[in-house]
Formats: sequence, C-alpha cells, structure tokens
Amino acid sequence: MRTLKVELGERSYPIYIGRNLLQHTGAMSAECGISRKSRHLIVTDESVAPHYLKKVKDSLESAGFQVAAHIVPSGESSKSLNVYEEVMTTAISSKLDRNSSVFALGGGVVGDLAGFVAASYMRGITFVQLPTTILAHDSSVGGKVAVNHPLAKNMIGAFHQPVMVLYDVDTLTTLPAREVSSGLAEMVKHGLIMDREFAYWCLEHASDLLALDPESLTYGLERGCAIKAEVVSQDEREGGLRAILNLGHTIGHAVEAVGGYGRFLHGEAIAIGMAGSAMLAESLGRADLYHETVAMLKALHLPVSLPSDVSVDQVMEAMQHDKKFSEGQMVFIIPEQIGKVSIVKDVPVAAVRAVVERLQKEGENG
Amino acid sequence: MRTLKVELGERSYPIYIGRNLLQHTGAMSAECGISRKSRHLIVTDESVAPHYLKKVKDSLESAGFQVAAHIVPSGESSKSLNVYEEVMTTAISSKLDRNSSVFALGGGVVGDLAGFVAASYMRGITFVQLPTTILAHDSSVGGKVAVNHPLAKNMIGAFHQPVMVLYDVDTLTTLPAREVSSGLAEMVKHGLIMDREFAYWCLEHASDLLALDPESLTYGLERGCAIKAEVVSQDEREGGLRAILNLGHTIGHAVEAVGGYGRFLHGEAIAIGMAGSAMLAESLGRADLYHETVAMLKALHLPVSLPSDVSVDQVMEAMQHDKKFSEGQMVFIIPEQIGKVSIVKDVPVAAVRAVVERLQKEGENG
Ligand SMILES: NC(=O)c1ccc[n+]([C@@H]2O[C@H](COP(=O)([O-])OP(=O)(O)OC[C@H]3O[C@@H](n4cnc5c(N)ncnc54)[C@H](O)[C@@H]3O)[C@@H](O)[C@H]2O)c1
Ligand SMILES: NC(=O)c1ccc[n+]([C@@H]2O[C@H](COP(=O)([O-])OP(=O)(O)OC[C@H]3O[C@@H](n4cnc5c(N)ncnc54)[C@H](O)[C@@H]3O)[C@@H](O)[C@H]2O)c1
Ligand SMILES: [Zn+2]
Ligand SMILES: [Zn+2]
Repeated sequence: MRTLKVELGERSYPIYIGRNLLQHTGAMSAECGISRKSRHLIVTDESVAPHYLKKVKDSLESAGFQVAAHIVPSGESSKSLNVYEEVMTTAISSKLDRNSSVFALGGGVVGDLAGFVAASYMRGITFVQLPTTILAHDSSVGGKVAVNHPLAKNMIGAFHQPVMVLYDVDTLTTLPAREVSSGLAEMVKHGLIMDREFAYWCLEHASDLLALDPESLTYGLERGCAIKAEVVSQDEREGGLRAILNLGHTIGHAVEAVGGYGRFLHGEAIAIGMAGSAMLAESLGRADLYHETVAMLKALHLPVSLPSDVSVDQVMEAMQHDKKFSEGQMVFIIPEQIGKVSIVKDVPVAAVRAVVERLQKEGENG
Repeated sequence: MRTLKVELGERSYPIYIGRNLLQHTGAMSAECGISRKSRHLIVTDESVAPHYLKKVKDSLESAGFQVAAHIVPSGESSKSLNVYEEVMTTAISSKLDRNSSVFALGGGVVGDLAGFVAASYMRGITFVQLPTTILAHDSSVGGKVAVNHPLAKNMIGAFHQPVMVLYDVDTLTTLPAREVSSGLAEMVKHGLIMDREFAYWCLEHASDLLALDPESLTYGLERGCAIKAEVVSQDEREGGLRAILNLGHTIGHAVEAVGGYGRFLHGEAIAIGMAGSAMLAESLGRADLYHETVAMLKALHLPVSLPSDVSVDQVMEAMQHDKKFSEGQMVFIIPEQIGKVSIVKDVPVAAVRAVVERLQKEGENG
C-alpha cells in the first residue's frame, strides 16, 4: 500500500492506494475518527454495488459501525438535483446526524454526488472517498463536489474535502474498456499539465495501462494523484494555479452537455477538449503540439475529434455557461510544451469557434 | 446609520442598520469590492418586490452594476429544492460567473434560499443580505443558509457568510402585524439566551416594538444583531456555544414541519418552543421561569401553546430528524435564568414528550 497526503492544514488527508483495501474500510474509518455512535451512509451505483457494496458494508459493520446504503443508477445522469434529493431523503430517513459520514463507493459520478450530499447535509458532514474507477484518481482528490444543471455541468456544488481516500486498485478489474480509456484521459492530462516525463511514460505504457497491468496502473494512479494533490495543496479553492487542471475541460464540458450527459464519457469529452486546446495553441501561434498530443490520446484509445452530428453552435452556446467564462472573457488553459500549460485570460471567441469547427472536420476526415 | 461588525477573520463583514439605506445599495456594494464586469442577481419575493425591488435595482444600476432579478412566491414553501433549482436556472441564464454576487432582498426565507444559491452556485459566489423583516436581524447575520426537506427543516444547506448586511429599517413599515410579532420572537430570544437586561427591555417596550416605533425598533435590532454577531464570532460553525441560539428551536422546528411550513410562522413556532423549554427547565428541576417567559412572549403577541389538532406523535417524530438530535441523544437548550441558558446533552425523550403534551393542554385551557 502506498500513502500520499493532501496538505491542506487542518483539512489535510491521506490517500491510500493499493490492493485489497476495501476489506479494511472499517478499520481505516475507525483510525480516521469516524463515530460509532452515529449512523453512516454508503452511496454507490448499480454497476458497482453488486461487486463491492457487501465488502464495504461488512467491513464497516464488523468494525462496529451502523451503515445504510443508497444505490443510484449508473452514469452521469445521476449527478442531478433529483437524485441528490433522493439521497438526502435516505440520509434523513436513516437518521444521519451531524457526526455521521457519507462514503462514496464508485467513480467520479458517485464521488461528486455523494460529496455534495456530505457538503450540504445539515450544512456539512464527514466524507470518505472509496474510488472504483481510474478516472476517480482525479475526482476523488481535491474536494470539488457537484451536481449538474440541465444547462451546464458541475454548476451546483461546493468545496468539501474528504477525510480519507481509500483507493483499492483491485476494483478496477471489473471496469469496462471504454471507462478504462476515459480514466486514462485524466491520467495523461496530469502529465500534460506539469510532468513531461510522466506524459511520455503514459504514452510508452499505453498498452500496459489499457490491459490493467497492476504495476503500471498503480504507478500511474500514484503519480496522477500526487500531481493532483500538489496542485490542490497550493490552491484549494481555485484562486489561480488550480485552473490548470481544467486543461481540455472548457470544450470538454460543453461537448458533454451537448451530448446530453451520457453520449460522451467525461474522459472522452476532455480528450476531445485536449486535442482542441493543442489546436488553439497552434492557431494562437503559441506552440506546435497538436500531432504529439493526438498521438498520446489515440494510444490510450481516446477520441480526438467531434462527430459530425454534434452542433458547433450548441457547443459554443454551452461554453458560455462554463465557470471558466469569467467577467465576459474566455479563459483557456493552453499547452506551451508537453508538461507545461498557461492560463490565458482573453482568448477570442472566434478562435475557439474555429477550433470546434476544425475538431469536427477532423472527425469527418478520419 | 449604525455599524456593527461580525468578526470572523478574513470572512469578517459589516452590518449597517438605519433608515433610507436601500437607495445606497449600489454605492455600498462598490465599496465592498463587488465587480462591475460580472452580472449579479437579486433574489426577492412577491410581497417584497412591489415595494423595494425597483429601488435596489435602480441603485445598483446607477452605480454601474448589471443586475437580473428572480422573484419567488412569499412564504416558507419557497425554501425548497424546487425553488432553489429555479433560482439556479435564472442565475445560469443570466450568465452569472464566479465573480458575480447574489443579493437577498427580503426576510429569512429569501435570505436562507438565496444564501444557499450563493453558497453552491459554481461552488460559491459573493452574497449580500438586504433584510426586510424584523426576524431577519437574526437570519441575515451568521452565514447559516439552507432550504428545507419535506421531512425536516433546514436539512440542506451550508455556512456561507455575506460580505455585507444592509438593514434598512424603513422597509419594516410595510410588514404585516403577525410578521412583526414573529420577528420579535427572535429578538427576545437574544435577550433570553444571554442578556437579561435586554430581555426585560423587550418586555417593557413591547407595545412600542409592536407599533414599530423607529427608535425602539432600531435599538432592539441593533442589540439583537450584536448578540448574534458576538455568538457567531466565537463559534462560526456551531462547534459549541452557537447552539444556544437554538433556544426554542428543537420543538419549534418540529411544530413548523408538522404544520406543513406555512401554518405557523417561524417566530410563532419558536415562541411555542421557548415556552416548552421553560416548561422543560421546570420539569427537570433546573429553573422556574415558565410564567415569566410566557408573559414576555404574550406581551409580544406570540403564541405559547399548541393547538389541539396538532399531533403530539408527529411533533415527536419530526424532532427525531432535528440536527440537534446528535448521536442518539436529545440535545436541548434549557433556560437557567432570564438571560442565561445551558446546553443539556441527554434530555430524556419522555420529558420532552410530556412538555409537548402540556403545551397542548395549555392551548385547550385557554
Ligand atoms: N470532482 C472532481 O474534481 C472531478 C474530476 C474529474 C472528473 N469529475 C467527474 O467525474 C465524473 C466521471 O467519473 P467516472 O468516469 O468515474 O464516472 P462514473 O462514476 O460514472 O463511472 C463510470 C462507469 O463505470 C461504472 N463503474 C464504476 N466503477 C466500476 C467498477 N469498479 N467496475 C465496474 N464498473 C464500474 C459506473 O457504474 C459507471 O457506469 C464526471 O461527472 C466528472 O465531471 C470530477
Ligand atoms: N439563517 C438563519 O440563521 C436563520 C435564523 C432565523 C430564522 N431563519 C429562517 O428565516 C425564515 C423566517 O424569516 P422571516 O420571518 O423573515 O420570513 P419571510 O422571509 O417569509 O418573511 C415573512 C413574510 O413577510 C413578507 N415580507 C418580508 N419583508 C416584507 C416587508 N418589508 N414588507 C411587507 N412584507 C414583507 C414576506 O413576503 C413573507 O410573506 C425561516 O425560514 C427561518 O428558518 C434563519
Ligand atoms: Zn475532469
Ligand atoms: Zn430561528
């Protein structure tokens, strides 16, 4: 087992990464100071529950914790205010109190949803992350929690740090192949934004990663979590630096929204967005990285273009609602080199539109 | 104009109390550092909007701010997730960004609702309180924001401090009489929990307060806000001391929930709750304050008993969901003297039930 730490003063917390960890959830929760007098809630989804819910529940119960569970449908559509309200109803009916905890057992969807429940139930209770996807090496670290609004992604949320991230890599063996690639998009993103060597490592080990080779996977997740943790420790509430984690996300979120949350997986959408950011770097005359970026993404079996039936107008419209659209100007994370990006505050909307159009042309051509 | 300050380190903020303040909203907002590049949202309700919305909007616009407005129905039922989602929709459609602000123009309902919108829109934006009820001298100070769940009050929320409270006492002239009394319940509560002299002052000036005599009103609001600010400064997130502000609220919230949010006004419900707390102090052999407490509440035209059609069982059931029901034990704020309370952690449920039954008997007797 490897241990990392997110340094945030009194909100600091450990990330444990390794095999066979879920069966120790109870013991690790006790160590974290979680109360045995209060009731707790596991939030998970329909695909994860059959594999891992019993293991987590048993572990917590044998350690003397009282737990209820709420199972949401799988997929992005569960990050909605409706599902949020249903989880709240379960939390209240299960008599959770101020000393209760919410355990998120699943991928980024479950983590973001359960995290916002924990952030706002009785104005905030304890939160534990039990990630079960590759993508969740990103989403489970850093305390950003949210649900979607029909008009735009992650619009409704909070900053609410977990007290522990328990990352059992054995859970990844049941992940569908498309989800594996989607998660690797965030992994290579962590290389692209600030670790050149790691980006190339991801390219070289692409087939090992796709095959879920335990050693490569553990290294990749550890390095990804470490980069995320470092950025978050420096800028918890996204006052500045943290924005670099949004590489590919401005276009990516718009693509997800226009696709109706479900057509594109999050990692797929941001892969398209990262290809777009590299195009933008090129068209703004800042860097010539498009072909190299696309090669990396393709090696991880990720899409790099926009299908022809996706409306460019709708993508542009959705982008206007993005949180990175600040004070009337378009903020973009632009790659400068492999392993280095800049936050550019006034990218012309016309340049962005040209990129979205070119992303679609690339789709038609190849 | 009187100025108080809530001392919370980097989250400190001023409370301005006085006449004719709303027409300076724009200038005061500029002083607060609110951005002229972003768009802002005024949230208000159907009873307040006809009187004061134009004044606030004009003031902000002449100071160079771009503002949209969202008007919710009047009353407690607007503190719901449905209305919350509607306000979110307006915020997104009005293109609010991370540097935008939400202005709450209204009573505690608007403040709590708009505050939770501000706390969670894009994970938190700036919040300004423009209280227009007497009750809001309490609700606008301290950063507790929330909406209700059908099963229990204020279950879904956050701590989110405003950057300024601008309290224009001229707005109180249009308040219906029942709302005046309801607000005075929280005012006398501030005396009952920690200022004996102020509690008696409220009793002596009951008729002036009910008649909205400007001088008495301003003094009462100032003293009420000051007590609230002091408690909040010492314990922002209710780790301990802040709980004393909940005098009367455990029973009060249950009564509100059972009444279906609307039958009892918040201040009416907590007046019944404060009468109950005094009964409890008596039955636990701690203090003999019931008659004096009831006299104070009656002088302010507040109810002190439970109508016979309210189900005691339902009130007891609703209380189990209360946030103050911690780790399986019932926490109660119990008066010790006029101006002094204790937090008692393990009040027997049977004693509480006896009190609720007696509150109803008092109602039947007269
Ligand atoms: N909070 C953050 O900082 C942050 C960062 C990145 C992404 N996100 C969010 O994360 C979400 C995407 O996360 P995700 O890709 O993990 O999505 P997800 O949670 O929907 O998981 C993907 C799919 O895999 C299934 N699944 C999960 N674990 C499994 C397992 N071990 N075995 C079999 N099936 C399993 C799920 O049921 C789902 O169908 C997006 O909503 C995105 O916005 C948040
Ligand atoms: N956040 C906190 O710390 C805190 C503290 C105490 C109470 N509260 C909450 O506050 C709420 C009660 O607040 P409230 O009593 O102000 O309720 P409210 O906001 O519903 O206002 C009471 C009524 O008066 C009307 N009104 C408001 N201002 C008016 C004016 N100037 N002229 C004419 N009509 C006006 C409103 O439309 C409403 O019908 C409850 O939901 C309670 O839980 C919160
Ligand atoms: Zn992402
Ligand atoms: Zn109150």
